Amino acid sequence: MDSNSVSPMPELAPIAEFDKSPPSPPNEEVPMDDLPPPPATISGNDVKKVKVQRSRSYESDDHERGACEWCEYALIITLATILLIGVSALTIFWVFFYREGYGWADDIPEKQFNLHPTLMVAGFVTFSGFSVLLYRICRCFRRIYVKLLHAIFHALAFPCIVIGFLAVLDFHNKTGIVNFYSLHSWIGLVAMGLFGIQYAVGFFSFLLLLICNKGTAGFRASLVPVHAAFGILTFVLGVAACLTGLTEKALFTFGQDLSTTKYWQMPQEAIVINAIGMSIVAVAIVVLYTVRGTGGYRLRKVAAQHPS
Amino acid sequence: MDSNSVSPMPELAPIAEFDKSPPSPPNEEVPMDDLPPPPATISGNDVKKVKVQRSRSYESDDHERGACEWCEYALIITLATILLIGVSALTIFWVFFYREGYGWADDIPEKQFNLHPTLMVAGFVTFSGFSVLLYRICRCFRRIYVKLLHAIFHALAFPCIVIGFLAVLDFHNKTGIVNFYSLHSWIGLVAMGLFGIQYAVGFFSFLLLLICNKGTAGFRASLVPVHAAFGILTFVLGVAACLTGLTEKALFTFGQDLSTTKYWQMPQEAIVINAIGMSIVAVAIVVLYTVRGTGGYRLRKVAAQHPS
Repeated sequence: MDSNSVSPMPELAPIAEFDKSPPSPPNEEVPMDDLPPPPATISGNDVKKVKVQRSRSYESDDHERGACEWCEYALIITLATILLIGVSALTIFWVFFYREGYGWADDIPEKQFNLHPTLMVAGFVTFSGFSVLLYRICRCFRRIYVKLLHAIFHALAFPCIVIGFLAVLDFHNKTGIVNFYSLHSWIGLVAMGLFGIQYAVGFFSFLLLLICNKGTAGFRASLVPVHAAFGILTFVLGVAACLTGLTEKALFTFGQDLSTTKYWQMPQEAIVINAIGMSIVAVAIVVLYTVRGTGGYRLRKVAAQHPS
Repeated sequence: MDSNSVSPMPELAPIAEFDKSPPSPPNEEVPMDDLPPPPATISGNDVKKVKVQRSRSYESDDHERGACEWCEYALIITLATILLIGVSALTIFWVFFYREGYGWADDIPEKQFNLHPTLMVAGFVTFSGFSVLLYRICRCFRRIYVKLLHAIFHALAFPCIVIGFLAVLDFHNKTGIVNFYSLHSWIGLVAMGLFGIQYAVGFFSFLLLLICNKGTAGFRASLVPVHAAFGILTFVLGVAACLTGLTEKALFTFGQDLSTTKYWQMPQEAIVINAIGMSIVAVAIVVLYTVRGTGGYRLRKVAAQHPS
């Protein structure tokens, strides 16, 4: 993390939770402005001794670890980008190729419904996924820019989710379908509620409260782990809502009318719907793997700074 | 963590990721055997100075934080226990009250199918959930006992998942239903595969390799964050499989025959199925909240030990 960071305090947890940034060269000072400097009672000579001891013990380890982490870092960025864009692209392809495209006219309400899966996947998976990953990966930027990017990606997800919700609500009302009876709708409501609360709390706490940077540092720092936990939870619930929604859609499409092909006959469209679902599962795997706690590695870094 | 820990190295990450154990009294030494002692170059007097400075600055904070954490700790244990047992109890109630109970005879294959949701919820949610939470919460026990409890709960989940899988496979074969066509089945297969790999890798690495404790410490330490990340992922995929399965069951039950009540008419059974789904969502919320990264709080503890 750079030393110009506008608000060093609240970033404690994300850094500790995710430490896959391009690692520092072995003998360079590990940048950790969220940790206090070594005790002032150590004299200048002692500090030198500590440094020499450290570079001797950790040099080869750091070299190997560095190469490994660069590989993993590049792999995750590439894989995540392909999957996050791919899942929305696949949904749009499905709608245009099998579901007659989009619209908001009264004559074909099904075209209006098609906005629902597309926008929900874009909002809850693509934009939210990018937003979570960005916050973890972009460690070379100044922290305030990463925060703004995080907020912007969620700001892109927000209208997607709202319009996606209104599209299905209006479609139900137009076609006389009852609202909020299915497990999918209940999970979706919880996910949307959490998303709204998270966005409001995050925007207020981590951007607006920067007006009074020092006075609110403690409050913001204590909020970070909760915000991060509920962020991941919102993402997981969004994924669960998408997967139950796709299951519903597949069963409604292939199960309602006796004359149509059945789901178990695996028509092309069923395979595409399943593929969208499995892409969402793959996104969840990459995102949850990336935001894993790397506390062990982190503490080895601390141990390197305060060797025994 | 107690000082008798059999294998101190591999536990670095879980501790850093989860620090909600009953906190130590403010002036007692914070037990952190995963952190090195303060630099040996500090003299005895200097160490005393550091301790006095620390107790002066952090005493009141620690008192408040301690009370808060005891509350949160007790709340999470109670809530998790109720939800984890409740979700399985509700599934068993649903099967006996609405689905004619269990069986493995050829005359009523539906009774055999009923084993599938019950055992999958027990395996992927109740036992796995307890196993994940136990590993995070039981910090007063010796680490090796927590590991064994973690392994035992997963060992209870294992036969549930295998029998639950065989029950639905045999039911499909008996009634001529095609296997592995739905999104639910694909997600379930991935979840079961991950569960098996996780169990095998975990058992081999964290229990069998203890035979050569010192020689394998580095390897085991590096595996901990990956095992933890994929463990949470397996749990999330298990939850997703349960939710898509319940959606399928609800639509098959209320949507196939024109004479039955429809799902949107919200018959009693539909509400019970939705309630099982929402209980699983509640379990996911509690578990994911509990295993959140508390790196920020952790680093404040480090700061308390190495004050500037």
